[in-house]
Amino acid sequence: MNKSEEVSKLKIIPLGGLEQIGMNITAFEYEDSIVVVDCGLAFPEGDMLGIDLVIPDVTYLKENIDRVKGFVITHGHEDHIGALPYVLREVNVPIYATKLTMGIIEKKLEEHAGLFKDVKRKVIKFGQSLNLGQFHLEFIKTNHSIVDAAALAICSPAGMVIHTGDFKVDYTPVYGDAIDLERFATLGKKGVLALMCDSTNAEREGFTPSELTVGKVLDTIFNENKNTRIIIATFASNVARVQQILTTAHKYDRKVAVEGRSMVSILDIAQKLNRITVPENTLIDIDELKNYPDERTVIITTGSQGESMAALSRIANGTHKKISIKPTDTVVFSSKPIPGNEKSVTKIINELFLKGANVIFQDTHVSGHACQEEIKLIYALVQPKYSIPVHGEYKHLKAQATLAESLGMPKENIFILRSGDVLELDADEAKVTGKVPQGAIYVDGLGIGDVGNSVLRDRQNLAENGIVVSSIVLDEYSGTMVSGPEIYTRGFVYVKESEEMLEEAREVLSLALTAAFDKGVTDWGKIKNVMKDSLTDYFWKKYKRRPMILPIIMSV
Amino acid sequence: MNKSEEVSKLKIIPLGGLEQIGMNITAFEYEDSIVVVDCGLAFPEGDMLGIDLVIPDVTYLKENIDRVKGFVITHGHEDHIGALPYVLREVNVPIYATKLTMGIIEKKLEEHAGLFKDVKRKVIKFGQSLNLGQFHLEFIKTNHSIVDAAALAICSPAGMVIHTGDFKVDYTPVYGDAIDLERFATLGKKGVLALMCDSTNAEREGFTPSELTVGKVLDTIFNENKNTRIIIATFASNVARVQQILTTAHKYDRKVAVEGRSMVSILDIAQKLNRITVPENTLIDIDELKNYPDERTVIITTGSQGESMAALSRIANGTHKKISIKPTDTVVFSSKPIPGNEKSVTKIINELFLKGANVIFQDTHVSGHACQEEIKLIYALVQPKYSIPVHGEYKHLKAQATLAESLGMPKENIFILRSGDVLELDADEAKVTGKVPQGAIYVDGLGIGDVGNSVLRDRQNLAENGIVVSSIVLDEYSGTMVSGPEIYTRGFVYVKESEEMLEEAREVLSLALTAAFDKGVTDWGKIKNVMKDSLTDYFWKKYKRRPMILPIIMSV
Repeated sequence: MNKSEEVSKLKIIPLGGLEQIGMNITAFEYEDSIVVVDCGLAFPEGDMLGIDLVIPDVTYLKENIDRVKGFVITHGHEDHIGALPYVLREVNVPIYATKLTMGIIEKKLEEHAGLFKDVKRKVIKFGQSLNLGQFHLEFIKTNHSIVDAAALAICSPAGMVIHTGDFKVDYTPVYGDAIDLERFATLGKKGVLALMCDSTNAEREGFTPSELTVGKVLDTIFNENKNTRIIIATFASNVARVQQILTTAHKYDRKVAVEGRSMVSILDIAQKLNRITVPENTLIDIDELKNYPDERTVIITTGSQGESMAALSRIANGTHKKISIKPTDTVVFSSKPIPGNEKSVTKIINELFLKGANVIFQDTHVSGHACQEEIKLIYALVQPKYSIPVHGEYKHLKAQATLAESLGMPKENIFILRSGDVLELDADEAKVTGKVPQGAIYVDGLGIGDVGNSVLRDRQNLAENGIVVSSIVLDEYSGTMVSGPEIYTRGFVYVKESEEMLEEAREVLSLALTAAFDKGVTDWGKIKNVMKDSLTDYFWKKYKRRPMILPIIMSV
Repeated sequence: MNKSEEVSKLKIIPLGGLEQIGMNITAFEYEDSIVVVDCGLAFPEGDMLGIDLVIPDVTYLKENIDRVKGFVITHGHEDHIGALPYVLREVNVPIYATKLTMGIIEKKLEEHAGLFKDVKRKVIKFGQSLNLGQFHLEFIKTNHSIVDAAALAICSPAGMVIHTGDFKVDYTPVYGDAIDLERFATLGKKGVLALMCDSTNAEREGFTPSELTVGKVLDTIFNENKNTRIIIATFASNVARVQQILTTAHKYDRKVAVEGRSMVSILDIAQKLNRITVPENTLIDIDELKNYPDERTVIITTGSQGESMAALSRIANGTHKKISIKPTDTVVFSSKPIPGNEKSVTKIINELFLKGANVIFQDTHVSGHACQEEIKLIYALVQPKYSIPVHGEYKHLKAQATLAESLGMPKENIFILRSGDVLELDADEAKVTGKVPQGAIYVDGLGIGDVGNSVLRDRQNLAENGIVVSSIVLDEYSGTMVSGPEIYTRGFVYVKESEEMLEEAREVLSLALTAAFDKGVTDWGKIKNVMKDSLTDYFWKKYKRRPMILPIIMSV
């Protein structure tokens, strides 16, 4: 019996990630055991009109449910946990995560009635081991823009994979310890088959600064703006940032009110789980703000990405019920726009400036992701045989691949996987051997998967051109037109100012229908085509416009 | 007779700019004379669904047409000339511009039949003077990302205003001379009432690098990629950039094909007007590319902003008829994403990487706008009494205001004007004294102004939620329902997979109508409300969705 008969290969199967950025979910499979790392959702791209969320197609997991041992979660961001409430309904297996991560997941499950009590959950400590089928897993301490972030050592009989999750190297984190570099080194010495490393910042040279550097900038801002109210917008989940704001506020003898649903919720969880230390007599309710002079208050708020419904947007545009901008306010964006949000963030900054506020949005944030020097450090410690860059767009994965090559990794040992790819690997070789079903499922309101590409194409068309509905009534027996044609429009033109055009359109339609009836056309499909074509033609030739045309035939 | 009776005040009236970035148009008014600087268009913001262009409301100019002496244009970018073909139809006055600027304007006018021969045009040289009514104007040489850019000295009996247009200070421009700093200094010495200075880069420290630095980077790229085809995307109007690509290609013995309508058009104008020097035997037709090995060719293309219909997008996604990406290609973005285009540019970069191309998009572009040190230099030379920051979003204007203050300009002498503001000024004082009509007019196909905010709200709603049309037929005499209700949807849900929901909706509607008829409701408005409300209710309560509902009643 030779080796290849003795030991099976490990399979790594991303079910999302590259095609839908954020939808992080990867199956690790060895014989009868499957563990799934993360279960994230993606936020809709600009062309996914009206879509609330995008979740992964987990057909593969459903079909292999007997072998799925559990979800192992690296940290509590939406792009790593957000799809759990949807996926668990179909793939109900235990969840393993660190303390804060589990706290956030549990809050989510509570909001989706029933799931909370039905799903098994286990909190794992750093360094703690976990046996799931033929897999042996270990959670390794890392740093990220949320506390309790973990890397994973995923050991199978075919070898060990290190998955960094989202991470950075922070020697002076605000909460807890620095990344456990010693553990990466020790595992590296044991021999690591593959490294799956965060690529988000792989295009950036150097080293991401410590979270602590933001605290120093905040201190300067508080020191230089002693006579104004301070409003700070940041990511709700960045507990360490909130900690630094609370600490600084306390130092400068200010009270802090927290605004925005997600901010309040995460602060609550972090307090309960001892992941944040609120200085005594510092937090106040938003309604208590009026009891203190402006210069003794701080408001921490959501909406740093310009989200139109978040607290900061409403504060900036004057629709917030309790807070409105004063010309004396200092507003700090302790954040950076996520790509795609630049315009909406700038819009709010302009609104705030227009209302006279002093807006500070530079040097007030650090990234949660490793830059090139940190990525190189992890490669140097882990010494993997294969590299599988993860997290980021194709260009980011490509940048890490280039980096790995520059460190001496042979090109053929680097794999940029697409969703559904099955990478089979062991110490002898690694290759993509197949493809499993995968895809993005759109969530719209309570509908899951009932909006797809054809509906989105219609929405795009409606968005750009509006709709013209034309209706007629036919006599059921004679087939003659007994009423109509009528024309109605939505999102097309100002109806009152375009009466002439719409009347002419009706006449064109009328003539086309008369001609068709004269020719003896009775088939409804054909009549609808006449309605559609004559109007499409008219609006295009005369006005270079292409509204969607919806022909309606009623019969009496 | 005291001074204030002798001399009237100068009025400066922006008719666009701040509210619609790009729609640069400013009226200068002194007694019976009005001159208008620039006449730009804005491109639609994300929420202006289906809008092609945004042009200024020039009611004020129409109402004062007898006093309007002409349009004076600073340079040939769309945000300074783009609205001319629309505005000239209503305000047909002469146009004054430098050579290339006029060449580009004339090409535009040719495309709008009739305007070309009907509009008076005069090409002005740098240093040349121009008398328009009581105004005396002078064009001053500047540098920008398009050649022949001018600043304007606008002299009235009440004082002189210097308007920089878009500018940078380039001591080593690729075409023509450096900015005429001596002239700014001389005019400054004479005494300048107000400076209207470009704010686009006012947030950025330092000095914008020379256009020549891009040439050096291009040389390195050509030198390091001797064995591949090179495709370079850049702004069509950046003639100096195209010049540098041509020169470099010639040096490395490559043939150059130009792709994209606007690129071909501007290259043609620039050649005719001697604004570019095409090295002998370098330009070839796109169809001739096949006659040369890849490593001896360069393609210059439009689409550097990720515009979905531009050449580069089609090349990247495989829908271009003549060019497709090869894994050996080197693709250079000689450009930077304009804010708001980041996502679409990244999308193309990812597509190119996915097809194996080597994509270069860093250090391959310089801005055409002055940074802080250049702005300070202009203030130092011009020594204006008042500052009116122009060009940019509010935060950019604000950054220049802060800069002006740091140079010793009193805060009350700095004016950030909104569209329609009338700023009256002379040596004694300056203040906003009124407001004239202003606004943004949407162009959609051939329609100008027939789409406004209510239509856009409908489009937004259609885009996010789709539409449900419900129709019934009533008997004209009895008022009874003789057909229907029927339900049709577009952009709402997959109809086939949602048959059950739509059938239930029809039943709900049917019941609501029956109840209304039983109560004796006959008013069509009321019946339509019943149709609307029952469906709105049903879809919201059961599915948390809000499609637009269009109720239709036909009668027979």
